[in-house]
Amino acid sequence: MSYATQKLAEEKVFKDPVHRYIHVRDQVIWDVIGSKEFQRLRRIKQLGTTYLVFHGAEHSRFNHSLGVYEIVRRIVDDSFNGRPEWDASERLVVLCAALLHDLGHGPFSHAFENVFDLDHEEFTRAILLGDTEVNEILKRVSNDFPQKVADAIAKTYPNKQVVSLISSQIDADRMDYLQRDAYFTGVSYGHFDMERILRVMRPREDQVVIKSSGMHAVEDYIMSRYQMYWQVYFHPVSRSAEVILTKILHRAKALSESGYDFEQQPTHFKSFFEGTFSLKDYLALDEGVLLTYFQYWINEKDPILSDLSDRFVNRKLFQYIEFDLAKDYMKMRELEQLFKRAGIDPEYYLVFDSSSDLPYDFYRPGEEGERIPIHLLMPSGEIRELSRESEIVEAISGKRRTDHKLYFPEDFLTEDGKKKALKKQILELLK
Amino acid sequence: MSYATQKLAEEKVFKDPVHRYIHVRDQVIWDVIGSKEFQRLRRIKQLGTTYLVFHGAEHSRFNHSLGVYEIVRRIVDDSFNGRPEWDASERLVVLCAALLHDLGHGPFSHAFENVFDLDHEEFTRAILLGDTEVNEILKRVSNDFPQKVADAIAKTYPNKQVVSLISSQIDADRMDYLQRDAYFTGVSYGHFDMERILRVMRPREDQVVIKSSGMHAVEDYIMSRYQMYWQVYFHPVSRSAEVILTKILHRAKALSESGYDFEQQPTHFKSFFEGTFSLKDYLALDEGVLLTYFQYWINEKDPILSDLSDRFVNRKLFQYIEFDLAKDYMKMRELEQLFKRAGIDPEYYLVFDSSSDLPYDFYRPGEEGERIPIHLLMPSGEIRELSRESEIVEAISGKRRTDHKLYFPEDFLTEDGKKKALKKQILELLK
Amino acid sequence: MSYATQKLAEEKVFKDPVHRYIHVRDQVIWDVIGSKEFQRLRRIKQLGTTYLVFHGAEHSRFNHSLGVYEIVRRIVDDSFNGRPEWDASERLVVLCAALLHDLGHGPFSHAFENVFDLDHEEFTRAILLGDTEVNEILKRVSNDFPQKVADAIAKTYPNKQVVSLISSQIDADRMDYLQRDAYFTGVSYGHFDMERILRVMRPREDQVVIKSSGMHAVEDYIMSRYQMYWQVYFHPVSRSAEVILTKILHRAKALSESGYDFEQQPTHFKSFFEGTFSLKDYLALDEGVLLTYFQYWINEKDPILSDLSDRFVNRKLFQYIEFDLAKDYMKMRELEQLFKRAGIDPEYYLVFDSSSDLPYDFYRPGEEGERIPIHLLMPSGEIRELSRESEIVEAISGKRRTDHKLYFPEDFLTEDGKKKALKKQILELLK
Amino acid sequence: MSYATQKLAEEKVFKDPVHRYIHVRDQVIWDVIGSKEFQRLRRIKQLGTTYLVFHGAEHSRFNHSLGVYEIVRRIVDDSFNGRPEWDASERLVVLCAALLHDLGHGPFSHAFENVFDLDHEEFTRAILLGDTEVNEILKRVSNDFPQKVADAIAKTYPNKQVVSLISSQIDADRMDYLQRDAYFTGVSYGHFDMERILRVMRPREDQVVIKSSGMHAVEDYIMSRYQMYWQVYFHPVSRSAEVILTKILHRAKALSESGYDFEQQPTHFKSFFEGTFSLKDYLALDEGVLLTYFQYWINEKDPILSDLSDRFVNRKLFQYIEFDLAKDYMKMRELEQLFKRAGIDPEYYLVFDSSSDLPYDFYRPGEEGERIPIHLLMPSGEIRELSRESEIVEAISGKRRTDHKLYFPEDFLTEDGKKKALKKQILELLK
Repeated sequence: MSYATQKLAEEKVFKDPVHRYIHVRDQVIWDVIGSKEFQRLRRIKQLGTTYLVFHGAEHSRFNHSLGVYEIVRRIVDDSFNGRPEWDASERLVVLCAALLHDLGHGPFSHAFENVFDLDHEEFTRAILLGDTEVNEILKRVSNDFPQKVADAIAKTYPNKQVVSLISSQIDADRMDYLQRDAYFTGVSYGHFDMERILRVMRPREDQVVIKSSGMHAVEDYIMSRYQMYWQVYFHPVSRSAEVILTKILHRAKALSESGYDFEQQPTHFKSFFEGTFSLKDYLALDEGVLLTYFQYWINEKDPILSDLSDRFVNRKLFQYIEFDLAKDYMKMRELEQLFKRAGIDPEYYLVFDSSSDLPYDFYRPGEEGERIPIHLLMPSGEIRELSRESEIVEAISGKRRTDHKLYFPEDFLTEDGKKKALKKQILELLK
Repeated sequence: MSYATQKLAEEKVFKDPVHRYIHVRDQVIWDVIGSKEFQRLRRIKQLGTTYLVFHGAEHSRFNHSLGVYEIVRRIVDDSFNGRPEWDASERLVVLCAALLHDLGHGPFSHAFENVFDLDHEEFTRAILLGDTEVNEILKRVSNDFPQKVADAIAKTYPNKQVVSLISSQIDADRMDYLQRDAYFTGVSYGHFDMERILRVMRPREDQVVIKSSGMHAVEDYIMSRYQMYWQVYFHPVSRSAEVILTKILHRAKALSESGYDFEQQPTHFKSFFEGTFSLKDYLALDEGVLLTYFQYWINEKDPILSDLSDRFVNRKLFQYIEFDLAKDYMKMRELEQLFKRAGIDPEYYLVFDSSSDLPYDFYRPGEEGERIPIHLLMPSGEIRELSRESEIVEAISGKRRTDHKLYFPEDFLTEDGKKKALKKQILELLK
Repeated sequence: MSYATQKLAEEKVFKDPVHRYIHVRDQVIWDVIGSKEFQRLRRIKQLGTTYLVFHGAEHSRFNHSLGVYEIVRRIVDDSFNGRPEWDASERLVVLCAALLHDLGHGPFSHAFENVFDLDHEEFTRAILLGDTEVNEILKRVSNDFPQKVADAIAKTYPNKQVVSLISSQIDADRMDYLQRDAYFTGVSYGHFDMERILRVMRPREDQVVIKSSGMHAVEDYIMSRYQMYWQVYFHPVSRSAEVILTKILHRAKALSESGYDFEQQPTHFKSFFEGTFSLKDYLALDEGVLLTYFQYWINEKDPILSDLSDRFVNRKLFQYIEFDLAKDYMKMRELEQLFKRAGIDPEYYLVFDSSSDLPYDFYRPGEEGERIPIHLLMPSGEIRELSRESEIVEAISGKRRTDHKLYFPEDFLTEDGKKKALKKQILELLK
Repeated sequence: MSYATQKLAEEKVFKDPVHRYIHVRDQVIWDVIGSKEFQRLRRIKQLGTTYLVFHGAEHSRFNHSLGVYEIVRRIVDDSFNGRPEWDASERLVVLCAALLHDLGHGPFSHAFENVFDLDHEEFTRAILLGDTEVNEILKRVSNDFPQKVADAIAKTYPNKQVVSLISSQIDADRMDYLQRDAYFTGVSYGHFDMERILRVMRPREDQVVIKSSGMHAVEDYIMSRYQMYWQVYFHPVSRSAEVILTKILHRAKALSESGYDFEQQPTHFKSFFEGTFSLKDYLALDEGVLLTYFQYWINEKDPILSDLSDRFVNRKLFQYIEFDLAKDYMKMRELEQLFKRAGIDPEYYLVFDSSSDLPYDFYRPGEEGERIPIHLLMPSGEIRELSRESEIVEAISGKRRTDHKLYFPEDFLTEDGKKKALKKQILELLK
């Protein structure tokens, strides 16, 4: 029997709080889960800094990756199984792509990628195709299999049903994270009838469509997504932690570039500061490593690095106000001047941050992302785009919502000491 | 207004997946939660190595500590409030004791304490009474307040109702962790009607009793506890990870003592290897720090330290068999000899481990622990010990159950290479 | 102690699957629950014919009434308690109004009221003020207490906070039924964070407002309501049963008026057929009584009454199609003619039915219902109407959605026998 | 295609709050569900009088029957499918037996069968084999199919795996009702990991065994059962209602036998009073019919029938005390005498009632019931009886628990009026 079709002697199950059980029958899947690159995802939180607001959100990307795999498995083994429009030979590609779609994520990836100008999707590709345990396992299926999996994740794979299951406006990735993040944070949003949606998913030419009888479950899913973005993912307090994290990395990089002499050598970071990092350097990082450095840095003599590290590790976050940069640009300049005069470096301590989301959009050729819209399969066999059928979805379709905040260390401004009048003036402006 | 009675301008809530919301009104509680020693509990998992079996079990001791606080808060603010047998002036002591009862836990504390001969309860005391942020906050209540909280946690506090709420066979600690660990692992055990139990708890002389109308909820709680121990806490696979962890620390310590030259200096561990550690050294540790070292150690030249570290980080665990050491002592000796001959050091690679639990016990004066039994308050006003009323509890009362396992690296014994016959012989013995 | 303030010796609790426990401390509430008029609600299903589609929906109005009471109790005893804007002397009025708001509902009230031109709200009033056990109990509070409770339910009570808690676009009635109906049907809609909403409800002049921090929970509630209406309450199959039920009652009434001689005298219905019913006649009805008659009527010689009764009792429902009466009026006339020619009375067997809902609306003076909008209390103290703050609510605000269906007995048209060509022609038109 | 293997064009699903969805593919199953005898189960509550204590327990036997079907469907279509020990040709028999196992239940069957000396199992058989819609449908499978289904339900079917799935100490019947009754009552007992149990069920010679890896889930199931019996099924207050119901039927029968002239002829009961009833008479009964009569009977001139009917309909139940008849036999005689002297007929108003349960038992040849024990399939292939492996089950195995109560109308004894001293004396004895 070929490795691609090899089954475990007995099915293995993982107990999962969201999907109850995650089922593995394929030897390939089992081996991939055991690889060190996949195990590394246990050391990276799914929601980055969100646990500093929702203390339950301590779950890892390992968790989520298994969940996405399980959803896709149920679709292809239950809903799609035996349907002529579905090419069953794609099963292993799509399962591996589901399991591995987040493989390149690093610790606190949003901030880390931002500062070092990286892209986790490139790392996913690099891990799949590079000298890794995962690559070795996938190659045992066939020489071109790692490339196929990488293409499926990169949305360049020829079979668009495979791509849609992983990356569309109603894909297994989103369905897992909405439910999982709701479960671990404990919020009451994020619930929708996934079982219903899975049952009415159908392969159809170059896409995956939803039988129109499941439309209301899809509406519910889109509302869940909307609520999760604004209640959890864009929570202003976790963005405060994210801002501080970004500034720590900025500061460390700037210090390194300026020849600063770290008391504890930042070995793990060196190649990133210098832009010479390898895949191995990247894989050596995880959140425990970063937090270990941040704890060292609390004791560094550079006051900014020390203070910011202390803030992050011991959760002494920045305060924030609503702030419209476009309108209040002059006020921002004024604040920067006042911060400088007060001896507080605005580059690190006065930070403007925006979050923005588009809950659903129909297809707009040529525009950013060229989102794949959700299509309903009507009883007549006709295919109709969701927002034409659903009033609720139409109502929010294409409406981007944005939130702007200005972050700053309120405690610096209220503490006793010098420059009281100046600080008071700043606080007035920040009200 | 004194600090002890100071309330927040507006009640703060934490969203909690187990108790829905955790409510904080007291300034003291709010400040303690913000202290760096309490925030440190975010970096220590509640269930140590269990996440390597139940991937959902990534929740921290921070989580659990808030939960225990909330349960005690509900008891004293709802069930006990206004009852003459309850001394309301104990409220703040018991709330702080609930919140801080696990404050001294270190990373993977079971293994760590075992190797370095420590006791997290002593560290809890040391943090409460030492030069820490927590101590500073508690002292603002009164000079003797840190000591009171420490005594309540150490069970030496004069008011035994306070002690019982934190440490008895049906305390807030157990009620929280059973539910919380069930929630995060996703197992179906661990559910019982806590709301019912809280409603029927009553202060009574030197103890907390349960109105007999809640007996069945208590039975359910005891069964939950029983199941959680055997299904989750004593799971043989997480014990395998625990065994490896213990051996890593043993090895590193042994190497250090023998003058081994680590490529990466084990700075954080040095004072523990040498027995000269301070509270500050202890507080500098967390699971991220340990895992960072283990990742360094994979690259150490000592093959045992390197191999064990690789096993833990990349989850390549030991296999196990049932093993009765008392009965099969000679077999153990034989195995040790064979391991040595095969070049596998039995001290690190052939590990016997026992887990044992007593689900419930009535009071046995003079015996280990002198457990506080659960007492029912009968409609007549009489107090009766639980196992006299409940057939189910009587049936399991005082029955200790023990599980013995022998752990070993099966992969070493099945891999190709030298000494095949010898390894085969070992495997035969280990069947 | 006066009866109004009399407390039970010990709090009574009802186990409730939706709110966990329902708590009763007041003697008045306890006595009202024990009255025969309130107990009668056990014999009337909350969702009428819905159980013929969602088999779990067998719960009674008794259930729901307790739930509404409990929600109001939590609001006034927890959220409102001690706030100066809330007049605590209104507590008992609002609790009784919550408990008794559905007291006048009869069996399958929608259909029954339709055929006999009744209004359950008038019966609620009549029971509260008439010669009943409930009235007797309420009068023991004070002579004008029954009238107060009736006024609160009728929305004419002077204190508009009391009215709002029972009847507004976010009242205890809706909050209970959405969750309860979702629970019993098993659908995944109907969940929202009620605990959060209750915590942020505030009395404010002549209304109840919601702190803006709870806005997203309110959005979720409105979406739940929207989904429950279209997925459950307006389900076309339960409307089919409702149509048949209405036609049974119509037929029985018409037969009675035409002097038809029933084999089993319809004693319970007589006064309704003749328009001479008393309150006692009304209270003698319940769903068991109606179903008992329907089972008699299966054996009546009138073929229409017999057939329709058989359809309802044994769930042989009408089929349906989308039908736009305004557009297809001529087609309707044609169908009626064809039905007559085929010997199928269109008055009973070709039934047009519309359902319509307005998920939320802001205040439109002078328009139907003059709905009380939902107002948010902003951090600034300002009051703002919900749809001005919430994009999602704005998107659906004031948009009425309607569904039109045409019901008919498909089995009559497909069965073998005479007039096959005619029936085929009808079926073509009904496609 | 034969009727036995005919599939629906599209799978039908029922939304079920316990199992999420109930799936039907087989035409036979679909037709059976549509039969009038099966639809009749909608008019009979699963838990009889329990809704008078747990108001959520209003669910019908229709509900439960679908649930048992779904569990068996999952076992045979998932766990057993393709296993050589399972004879796939038994699939339809076992599905029908699961669906129809409670078909013969009548309204409040415990009391009704008791008074009229009936047995619902005989009625199940009679409906399956008699002139009914169900029989007609089943006969279309094959002439002997109704008999096969009846035998499977009666435990006389040759294939003992089929029998075990429906009737054993861990069958689909119990697994459904424990979960369903817990769900609808809202109690926290009744939860166990059914999905796990189903996954480890295996056909094996003449029984169904459980892989030992699922032992703890089975322990949990047995504890659930134990708790549900004592917390819900044997609740003394619902037994009070049951006692009254029994006495109503007794009284009506006695009156009929004595030639009493009912104001409203008890048509539906006549043949039962006289012992001449037919299957049709039985099927004409349901709980609505009984309650309709009870409401008539409130107005009967016989004071006992009137009073008892009023008590049941309006929930004015009997009070109770613990009572050991064996020990206090003389006290019982004394009470009976005193009741008579007080003018209260002890036959109807002083009722002794026992409930008794055996949570689990191993096989005891020749003893009552000859229960089929639960067998575990060990990794070695060996079969071992559950209580030999599980300490908890061993502890409660074979231990019968019994509860004795004496019921009486306390209100009669406390009301003002004549014979105060006598009544006081009675009350003293009843303390």
